[in-house]
Amino acid sequence: MDARTTDSPEAWLRANRERLWEEYKELVRIPSVSAKPDHAGEVRRAADWVAERCRKAGLDKVQMLDAGGHPTVYGEWMGAPDAPTILVYAHFDVQPAEPLELWTSPAFEPTLRDGRLYARGSSDDKATLFISLAAIEAWITTSGRLPCNVKVFYEGEEEIGSPTLAGILDRHGDLLSADLCLSADGGMMFPDRPDVSVGNRGICKLEFTLRTAAKDLHSGSFGGAILNPLSAMAKLIATLHGDDDRVAVKNFYDGVRETTAQDRAELASVPFDEAAWLSGVGASVVWGERQRTVLEKLWLRPTLEVNGMWGGYQGEGSKTVLPCEAHAKITCRLVPGQDPRKVQEAVAAHLQAHCPEGATISVRLGGGGAAAYEIAPDHPALATIEGVLEDVYGMPCFRTRIGGTLPLCAVFKERLGLDTVPMSFSTGDEDFHAPNEFFREASFDRGLTAWARVYPALATLPRR
Amino acid sequence: MDARTTDSPEAWLRANRERLWEEYKELVRIPSVSAKPDHAGEVRRAADWVAERCRKAGLDKVQMLDAGGHPTVYGEWMGAPDAPTILVYAHFDVQPAEPLELWTSPAFEPTLRDGRLYARGSSDDKATLFISLAAIEAWITTSGRLPCNVKVFYEGEEEIGSPTLAGILDRHGDLLSADLCLSADGGMMFPDRPDVSVGNRGICKLEFTLRTAAKDLHSGSFGGAILNPLSAMAKLIATLHGDDDRVAVKNFYDGVRETTAQDRAELASVPFDEAAWLSGVGASVVWGERQRTVLEKLWLRPTLEVNGMWGGYQGEGSKTVLPCEAHAKITCRLVPGQDPRKVQEAVAAHLQAHCPEGATISVRLGGGGAAAYEIAPDHPALATIEGVLEDVYGMPCFRTRIGGTLPLCAVFKERLGLDTVPMSFSTGDEDFHAPNEFFREASFDRGLTAWARVYPALATLPRR
Repeated sequence: MDARTTDSPEAWLRANRERLWEEYKELVRIPSVSAKPDHAGEVRRAADWVAERCRKAGLDKVQMLDAGGHPTVYGEWMGAPDAPTILVYAHFDVQPAEPLELWTSPAFEPTLRDGRLYARGSSDDKATLFISLAAIEAWITTSGRLPCNVKVFYEGEEEIGSPTLAGILDRHGDLLSADLCLSADGGMMFPDRPDVSVGNRGICKLEFTLRTAAKDLHSGSFGGAILNPLSAMAKLIATLHGDDDRVAVKNFYDGVRETTAQDRAELASVPFDEAAWLSGVGASVVWGERQRTVLEKLWLRPTLEVNGMWGGYQGEGSKTVLPCEAHAKITCRLVPGQDPRKVQEAVAAHLQAHCPEGATISVRLGGGGAAAYEIAPDHPALATIEGVLEDVYGMPCFRTRIGGTLPLCAVFKERLGLDTVPMSFSTGDEDFHAPNEFFREASFDRGLTAWARVYPALATLPRR
Repeated sequence: MDARTTDSPEAWLRANRERLWEEYKELVRIPSVSAKPDHAGEVRRAADWVAERCRKAGLDKVQMLDAGGHPTVYGEWMGAPDAPTILVYAHFDVQPAEPLELWTSPAFEPTLRDGRLYARGSSDDKATLFISLAAIEAWITTSGRLPCNVKVFYEGEEEIGSPTLAGILDRHGDLLSADLCLSADGGMMFPDRPDVSVGNRGICKLEFTLRTAAKDLHSGSFGGAILNPLSAMAKLIATLHGDDDRVAVKNFYDGVRETTAQDRAELASVPFDEAAWLSGVGASVVWGERQRTVLEKLWLRPTLEVNGMWGGYQGEGSKTVLPCEAHAKITCRLVPGQDPRKVQEAVAAHLQAHCPEGATISVRLGGGGAAAYEIAPDHPALATIEGVLEDVYGMPCFRTRIGGTLPLCAVFKERLGLDTVPMSFSTGDEDFHAPNEFFREASFDRGLTAWARVYPALATLPRR
């Protein structure tokens, strides 16, 4: 069907639905893994694909913004001089797909099963990126214009912590002035109930290597008289949490604000079923700080997680090796009030101070840290977006937070003075960052409708 | 030169030295890697080569002993009815040669450089296997007989833990009755000073997996409220040793005999340079149980070593995963008095008992365990062999132990009632099990002389 035969953006989206779905799958097929240096070409290929798609949607000034890392795709439509400007954020890079053997269908071949499209990046974040762009195309194609000014900022290195985002803002900040950032990255709690996220945790990263000898040794010839780096690493990592499961690193909790009565009221309004949540995860018990609820722990409390730990022989059978090295990767999730650099340094200092005698430790501070972010509860964009979602879903919207990190929120606030509200149609059960990531086909349709409606709704947002 | 023109075994060995050296290299060229299923044919080719060489040496009843694995080559000379019977042990299989890129010359092309013959198996154990056989040939060729009865037992699966050795003893134990086992496998501490090993440690193996959830999770979405299996594994492994670096597993030390005054005297007689040893290892300090010397810890004390430990993301950069599984492989080195099965069970029970709440543990007990072994210090064979070595080297012999495991020692003792004394001319620095394994040409000549002399020396050994 020819797009020009329809007259409203929503009708156009319905009429072109199959083509849009295929285009979205085309984007998902590009293995744009930003963490892997040998995949830089694929990240670039995804950037080119997105830029071309921006031009096709009718955006102007489509260009790559670059500060030495993976590029960001920028485009704009600025034809409404009296209306506010919305900066639309999303990212087209994805997490590594490993372990590949746990995927039911190939990680980069989108496969529809039971209304779910399985592929790495299908949910995080290529679905809502594509939706945000399709809604722009729908408006410009059917109406020749958008109801408000729109700038898109589609990033290529979110999954590695946006290491050059600050550099891009330094170089291209002038391009990016706006009244609000609407983020297509984020996620809702449920596939069939709307929520709006009012904050997210920050992050900092580090990794370390312990060494105890110059080479791997025979465990018979040397075992008992040379320190085993794996046992040493175990003892060291065991010092990072106390018996109360709190992080035992000095100064770790500096600046963390205590949960308020308003926080508790918001948490209480979330339809959270702890038993269902546990069973969805396949875990037997809730873990963590005493006297705090699950949502409080996930949204308002900082963490220290070991993301990887390894050394010695991992193959079939046994190898009687006394290895000479042990390795671990750590990230901390941060809450408002914590400084990512200070937390990173506190953890590094702890590791150095607790390194067992007989081992040397080298700690590498990771880049890409980000502060936590929260929006003022009375920000006018919140009510506007809640209204759009309540219409689309036909039910009340509640407020959530994101336990993960949207680094751009803190950076946009600090550099551009912009508040950010996410409007993603991914839901937390879609296994992003894990094997068999998927996106619900039904969310694709709800997302298209909501994004088609959010541009006119935000046209009345007060300008900054 | 024709062998028949000489009149003593030692003279015959000198006269045939070049031919023997070439034959030894022929054996080394066969890549008899027992660990690789696709090399079974090469292990068989080595067995055939050894069997043919046994026939040529003048042994009778040469045959393959088989219990479903790689075969053992057996042969005998039983022409001295009043003399004792010596069972000569060696193995013709070798470790894998990988990583191949670290070899200076090809792993299976024996190459002489600076008096060292480089090749996989050149030292472990084809050198002394060949020497033991050449000395038999020297005696039978020059004298028409050996001074004592000799049975050879050349194994083809030592490097994979002798999985069918017990089966071979079950089937063919009658063939193997003897008064002493003289092992061509083992090793001396130094290339220019003789020693005799009077014991070796045993081994038991196990591995475990900790699980905390049904799948890998996003560390932002779940971190802080679901137990991290890597932190849990660290805490669990940290419980395996106390602050005093002793193994903290209940009943672990059951049956371990305390170091005696005689042990201390033997240890003190070893020319051991702790500083040189540490610097050879590239370690900064000696680790382990307090108030014990390095040699005591390596030879007379049991250990628990983590040989491998892993979980989560190990690649480049970072991945914000909260993994659902963690894994570790453990071996224990055992000393006389410890039962491998009981130690294995004690460690498994400790792991089960200390498994953190929120995790499930599955422990897999490994096969291939072996008890420790020691020979009585006043065993008459010891003085005899020490005498032979002191003559050949022209200096006093000291007593050592092996921190690693020679499973056959305990098995021969238990199944055949046989004590074992090693008389290998490999030395600990010859990188067996590593790239660029080598054997010293000078050790070849010393070995031939010593093995030519040990058969008559043992002819006076009391029969059992």
